[in-house]
Amino acid sequence: MIGYSFMGRAHSQAWRTVGAAFDVPEVARRVIVGRDPQAVAESARRLGWQEHATDWREVISRDDVDIVDICTPGFLHAEIAIAALEAGKHVLCEKPLANSTAEAEAMVRAAQAAAERGQVAALGFTYRRVPALALAAQFVRAGKLGTIRQARAAYLQDWLVDEEAPMTWRLREETAGSGALGDIASHAIDQIQHLTGQRVRAVRGRLATMVPQRPGADGPEPVTVDDAAWATLELDGGALASVEVSRMATGVKNQLTVELYGTGGALRFDLESPNELWFLDAGLPVAEQGFTRVLVTEPEHPYLEAWWPQGHVLGWENAFTNQARDLLLAIRDGDAAPYSPDFADGLALQRVLEAITASHAADGATVTL
Amino acid sequence: MIGYSFMGRAHSQAWRTVGAAFDVPEVARRVIVGRDPQAVAESARRLGWQEHATDWREVISRDDVDIVDICTPGFLHAEIAIAALEAGKHVLCEKPLANSTAEAEAMVRAAQAAAERGQVAALGFTYRRVPALALAAQFVRAGKLGTIRQARAAYLQDWLVDEEAPMTWRLREETAGSGALGDIASHAIDQIQHLTGQRVRAVRGRLATMVPQRPGADGPEPVTVDDAAWATLELDGGALASVEVSRMATGVKNQLTVELYGTGGALRFDLESPNELWFLDAGLPVAEQGFTRVLVTEPEHPYLEAWWPQGHVLGWENAFTNQARDLLLAIRDGDAAPYSPDFADGLALQRVLEAITASHAADGATVTL
Amino acid sequence: MIGYSFMGRAHSQAWRTVGAAFDVPEVARRVIVGRDPQAVAESARRLGWQEHATDWREVISRDDVDIVDICTPGFLHAEIAIAALEAGKHVLCEKPLANSTAEAEAMVRAAQAAAERGQVAALGFTYRRVPALALAAQFVRAGKLGTIRQARAAYLQDWLVDEEAPMTWRLREETAGSGALGDIASHAIDQIQHLTGQRVRAVRGRLATMVPQRPGADGPEPVTVDDAAWATLELDGGALASVEVSRMATGVKNQLTVELYGTGGALRFDLESPNELWFLDAGLPVAEQGFTRVLVTEPEHPYLEAWWPQGHVLGWENAFTNQARDLLLAIRDGDAAPYSPDFADGLALQRVLEAITASHAADGATVTL
Amino acid sequence: MIGYSFMGRAHSQAWRTVGAAFDVPEVARRVIVGRDPQAVAESARRLGWQEHATDWREVISRDDVDIVDICTPGFLHAEIAIAALEAGKHVLCEKPLANSTAEAEAMVRAAQAAAERGQVAALGFTYRRVPALALAAQFVRAGKLGTIRQARAAYLQDWLVDEEAPMTWRLREETAGSGALGDIASHAIDQIQHLTGQRVRAVRGRLATMVPQRPGADGPEPVTVDDAAWATLELDGGALASVEVSRMATGVKNQLTVELYGTGGALRFDLESPNELWFLDAGLPVAEQGFTRVLVTEPEHPYLEAWWPQGHVLGWENAFTNQARDLLLAIRDGDAAPYSPDFADGLALQRVLEAITASHAADGATVTL
Repeated sequence: MIGYSFMGRAHSQAWRTVGAAFDVPEVARRVIVGRDPQAVAESARRLGWQEHATDWREVISRDDVDIVDICTPGFLHAEIAIAALEAGKHVLCEKPLANSTAEAEAMVRAAQAAAERGQVAALGFTYRRVPALALAAQFVRAGKLGTIRQARAAYLQDWLVDEEAPMTWRLREETAGSGALGDIASHAIDQIQHLTGQRVRAVRGRLATMVPQRPGADGPEPVTVDDAAWATLELDGGALASVEVSRMATGVKNQLTVELYGTGGALRFDLESPNELWFLDAGLPVAEQGFTRVLVTEPEHPYLEAWWPQGHVLGWENAFTNQARDLLLAIRDGDAAPYSPDFADGLALQRVLEAITASHAADGATVTL
Repeated sequence: MIGYSFMGRAHSQAWRTVGAAFDVPEVARRVIVGRDPQAVAESARRLGWQEHATDWREVISRDDVDIVDICTPGFLHAEIAIAALEAGKHVLCEKPLANSTAEAEAMVRAAQAAAERGQVAALGFTYRRVPALALAAQFVRAGKLGTIRQARAAYLQDWLVDEEAPMTWRLREETAGSGALGDIASHAIDQIQHLTGQRVRAVRGRLATMVPQRPGADGPEPVTVDDAAWATLELDGGALASVEVSRMATGVKNQLTVELYGTGGALRFDLESPNELWFLDAGLPVAEQGFTRVLVTEPEHPYLEAWWPQGHVLGWENAFTNQARDLLLAIRDGDAAPYSPDFADGLALQRVLEAITASHAADGATVTL
Repeated sequence: MIGYSFMGRAHSQAWRTVGAAFDVPEVARRVIVGRDPQAVAESARRLGWQEHATDWREVISRDDVDIVDICTPGFLHAEIAIAALEAGKHVLCEKPLANSTAEAEAMVRAAQAAAERGQVAALGFTYRRVPALALAAQFVRAGKLGTIRQARAAYLQDWLVDEEAPMTWRLREETAGSGALGDIASHAIDQIQHLTGQRVRAVRGRLATMVPQRPGADGPEPVTVDDAAWATLELDGGALASVEVSRMATGVKNQLTVELYGTGGALRFDLESPNELWFLDAGLPVAEQGFTRVLVTEPEHPYLEAWWPQGHVLGWENAFTNQARDLLLAIRDGDAAPYSPDFADGLALQRVLEAITASHAADGATVTL
Repeated sequence: MIGYSFMGRAHSQAWRTVGAAFDVPEVARRVIVGRDPQAVAESARRLGWQEHATDWREVISRDDVDIVDICTPGFLHAEIAIAALEAGKHVLCEKPLANSTAEAEAMVRAAQAAAERGQVAALGFTYRRVPALALAAQFVRAGKLGTIRQARAAYLQDWLVDEEAPMTWRLREETAGSGALGDIASHAIDQIQHLTGQRVRAVRGRLATMVPQRPGADGPEPVTVDDAAWATLELDGGALASVEVSRMATGVKNQLTVELYGTGGALRFDLESPNELWFLDAGLPVAEQGFTRVLVTEPEHPYLEAWWPQGHVLGWENAFTNQARDLLLAIRDGDAAPYSPDFADGLALQRVLEAITASHAADGATVTL
C-alpha cells in the first residue's frame, strides 16, 4: 500500500478485516509506503503492516508483493499505477483515477496491456459497495424501475463554510486538479452512470468559488478550484440527470443523495442513512404506493450475509472491506467475477468532469463527449 | 350546537365546510348555545351561526333543529344527550362519552330507544376520520396484516411539564373524571380497538401524578387526576396491546402513535405526520421488505376524492369535516351508511378506562371486562 | 370570484373560513363567475356564493363588489385584472401573474395606477403563507442564517409519467405559456427570492420534454411545453441557487423542497411535511449541531394563534385562508400591513422564467436580467 | 476468547481493530477456545487468533493470557468468569451476566476479590459504546435534560413471527433463562438506568408467549420463555419508565428505541439510525423548539476522533471496538479510567429482570428491589 493517511487507514481496515468477513484468498499486509520514514513506521505499527518503506519503486518490484494499493493524492496515481502494472502487479487505485485526461489515458493503456497478462486494475469508487447502493443497482438491473428518465444526485459538505478556513493543497488547481467537482461530483456522477447503466454523452456545467481567497502561510492566497458545482447530464439511454455539489452547505457534513425516476418505479438514497434504500413500485395500486424504506441489513442483501445477523447496521468503512473482497475474487476468478469500475470507467468519468469544466468556461454551453 | 370553545370552533369549521367538500344533504348552522350571553353572541358571529342562545333545553325542543352537536365538557354530556335524543334529535357527542360508566349506560339506553325511532347517536372519536387512519382500518379489514398479535399506542403531550402551570378543572377528578387516561388514552384505546377490530377483555394499568400539587387561586391545590398512564390490554381476538400516555413528555406537543403487528404485515402511524401511513407487507421477498410511507393524499384514499388534487395534504380540522359528512350520510341513508363509533362503543371504552383505574388501585392486578 | 374549478374551490374555502379564524373585516361571498351557466350555478350552491354569473365584465362593474378574486387560467389574468383595477376594485390574482412579460407589464401599470387610488393588487403565491415557510422567512430576516450563499429548490410531480396520459391545454404552449417551468418552477423561484430576500440577476436554464407527443382527440399531438426544467440562478446578494422541477418524478405527488445555506445556519423545508421547518444553528457547539425539526404548530408561530391549540397540524388549504387574511388586512390597514407579493413581484418572476427559457434556447448561456 | 459464534466474531473484530483506531496498549489475539476442534481451528484462522484450544480451563491458566473474553451462552458465564478471575485474569463477559441471580452474586463476589488485586471485571452492554448513546449520557450528565421524569424504551424484533420457526435453545427456559426479557429487555433497562443515572427500585411486569409451541426435532415442543414483555419501572430518582420488548414485531429487525423526558429537555434514540441522537432543548423559545437530529459523526463526539473524518458513519460493530478500547484503558489506568458496567451492575440488572418475572407471576403486582 502506498499512502497512509485517511485513505490508507480506511484501506488498511479493509485488508485487516476482509478475511474474517468473507471467504477469500488470504492476503498479507506486506509493506506500507510513505515519504516520511517516522510517520510510515508508526503507521505500519498502528495499521498492522509487516514492513514499511519510503521508496515505492523499490517496493513494487518486490516478488512478494502481488497487489499494489494506491492511496496517495491524485497527482501521483498515474506514475505509480503504470509502474506497478508494468511490474506485473494487480492494482487498486483510489479515485479519482488521475488529475487529467492525459494521465488517465496512459493509465488505461497500461491497464489494457496488463489485462492481457491477467492482471486486474481496479478503481476505488467505494460507494458502489455500500450495500444499499449495490441493492439499488440490483433493482435497476432487475427492471424494477423500467426505463429511467430522470436522475438527481447531490453531494453536500460544509468544511469550507468558514472564510478563515486555511488554504490547503486541495484548494489549488495544480495539486488538486479541481475542487468539489473532482472530489465529490465524481462520486455523484459515478453513481448516476453505474446505477442507470447509462453513460453521459453531453453536459452543461457551472462552477463557483464562493470564497475566492483564504489565509495562507504568507497571507491571503487565491483559491483556484471550485467550492461548488452544478451540471445537467444527458445520458446515452435518454435519461437526464442533475448534479449539485458543494463544500459550503452549512451544517451538512457528508451527504450524498441519489434519486432515480423510471417508468416503473423510483429509488432514493441518502448517505447520511447509508443502510437505507427507498424504493417506490409504481406498479402497485395507488392507494398502497409510497417509498419503502428498505433497511439493507439482511442476509438477503448484497454483502450482508458475510457480516452480522439481521438488523445490524454497517458503517462507512465496511464498504472498503466489501471492495477488497471483490478485488480478491476478481484476481482469483478472472472473468467469472469481473471488478468494476476499471480504469476505463475512470477515464470516462474524467472526461465527464473535464466536459463540465469546459462547459463552464463556455458560459454553460453543451459539451458533447 | 352546544358549546363554543375549542371543540365548538372545530365542529363549526366542519359544518361550515362539509357541504362544499362532500355531496351531502344541506345543513344550516341554526343555533349555537353557551352560558355566557355575550361570548356566545360573539361566537355566533365569528363562527357563522344564525342564532345564539343560552338555554340548551329550549333549543333542543325547537322544531327547526334536527341535529344536536354536543361540544361541552364531559360532565354535561349525559344530561344534554339524553334530553336531545328524547326530544327526537340526532346527536353528535364529543368524546369522552361521559365521565362515568353510570352516565354512559344511561346514554346508551337513550340511544337504543332513539335508534328505534330512526335517530342517530354518534360519538366523536374524530381521529377515526383522519384519512391515514381510515386507510389503516381498510388495510386491516382487507387482511393485509393477517392476524394481529401485538399493538402499541402512545399519546404524548407536554403541557404540564412546567410545575408552575396553574391548576385547572382538567386537573380535578370531580370535573374531569380522569387526567391523561380519559383525555388521550381514550383515543389510543379507541384506535387499538377500531383498527384491530378486537375488543379489550382484560387490562392491567398504572397511573401516575408526577406533579402532585399546582398553584391555584388560593395557593397550592392537589392534582387529583393522572399526569401519565400505562396499560397492557388483552384483546378478544388474542392480541396484546400496550398504551402509554403522558402530559409530561417534554417538547412533544400532540403525538399519537399507533403500531400494529400481524402475521402478514405491520402498520405504523404518527399524528405528527398525519398524512402518512407506514405499511410493511411481510409477504414481499425479504430483500424488498420495509415500511412503505404511503402519503395519504390521493383520490384513491378515504375521503380524499372530495378534497384537493393529488399530493395536497390535509390538516387536523379536515377530519371533523369528514366526520360531519359521515354523520349526515348516516342520517340520510340509515343502515346503508352506519356511523361508528356509537354510544355503545363509548360505553365500552369507558369501561376499559375504569378497568385501568381499578387495576391501578389494585396494584396492577388484571381486571377483566 | 372569477373561476370555479380547483383554485376557485380553494379560494372559496379561504373566504368561507377567514372570518372564523381571524379577526378581519367581514367579507360576503357575493358573486361567482364562470362561463358555463349550469356549472357555475352548481358551484355557487356548493361553495356558498350568494349569486352566480357568466359575464365577468358585468360583475366587476357592480357597486356591491369590492374585491375581485381571479382564479381563471393564466391567459385570462391580464384582461380581467386590468379591467377590475380600472373599475376600482381590489384584486387578488392567482399565480402566475400572466403568460407573457408584455401582459405582466400592463398589469403592473394598472396596479400602480390603482395603488394611487388606494387599491390593493395582490398575487397569490400561497406557499408564502404556509406557516413553516413564513417562519423560515422570519428566521432569515432575524439573521439566523447569516449571509446566504447557496440555495436549492426542487418541485417534483409525477402526473405525466404515463406516456398515454392525454393531451391537455396545459401541454400546449399557446394556452399554458410554459410547462413545469411556469407552473411549479415559479413557486420554487418565488420561495428562493422571498426567503433569501435577494433577487435573481442572471440565470442559466435547461428545459426538456421527455414525452414529445401524447394522445389527443384526433390522434397523437405534439407536446409543446417542458416536462422538466433546471436552472442555476445568480442572486443580487451574491447567493447561487439551483432549481429543478419535473412532472416525471415517478411516485412523487407534489413535493416542493427548499434548502438555504448561510454563514450562520441552514434551513430545509419539504412540502410533503408542510408543518415542519428544519433549522440548523451553526453557532452551536459542533457536538450539539444538527437540523432541528420545528413542528410549526404552536401559537408562537406565524398565523397559528388563530387556528387550533398546540400540536394540531394545518393542511394545504389553510394557507389560502392565511392569504385571505393578509389581503383583508392590507385593504383595511394600507401601508401598515402591506401585502406581498404584488404584481411587480409577479412581473419580476415572469422575467426570470423568460430568461430561463431564453437561456435554454441559447444552449445554456447566461441570461442577465 | 471463549466462544466463536456471533459474539465471538464481533469481539474478534474489536480486538483486530482497536489498536489501529485508538492509542491503546498492544493486545495480541492469543488463543480462541471452543468445544468443536475443527470449528475452533477454522475460526482461529478466519478471525486471526494465534492459537486455538478446546479446554478453556487450561487456557485461563496460561501465563501469556492476561484477558479472558467470554462470548459463550449465558449459562456458562459464571463458571468461566469466576475461574478466570481467580486465575488472576482480567475478564470481559458478554451480557447477560448470568442466567440467575445466584450465579450473578457469585460472580460479583469473585469480581470484588479480583478488584483488590487490580483486576478488571467488565460486562459487555455494548450499546453503551454506540457514540450516539454515549453522547446521550454526556448530555444527561451535563444537565441538559434537567430532572428526568419519564423514560420509554422498546426493543422490537421479528424473528419469531413465523409460527413454524423451529424450536431452539433460546426458547427453553433451562438454557436461555428467559426470552425477550433477558435477551433484549436487558439492553433497554440497562440504557434506562445508565442514561438516567437512576436505579430501578420497583417494577410491574407482564410476559407473554404468543406462539406456545414450535416444531422440534421430535414434533411440537412447548416454548417455555416469553416472546414479548412489558414493564413499568420506578426509578430511585423519581422517574417512571416503561419497557416493551418483542420478538413478534413483524418486519422490525432490530430496533431499540429510547426516549427520555426531563424538566429541561428530551432525548430520543433509535438503533435503526444508530448515528443519530435527537435532542430537544426546552430552554429555547417555543418558536425554535424541536428535536435536533445530531449526526454523531464528528470528532467532537465520543469515540469519533479515533475513527474517520467528519460525516462518516459508524456501524454496529464499531461499538465493540470502542468497548475494547475502554477495557484496555481501564486495565492500564485503573481508577483513572474506570470501566462500566461492572459485574455489580449486571447483578442489579439481573435482579430487575427477576423482579419483572416475579411481578408477572403475581398478576402484575409491584415488586420492590
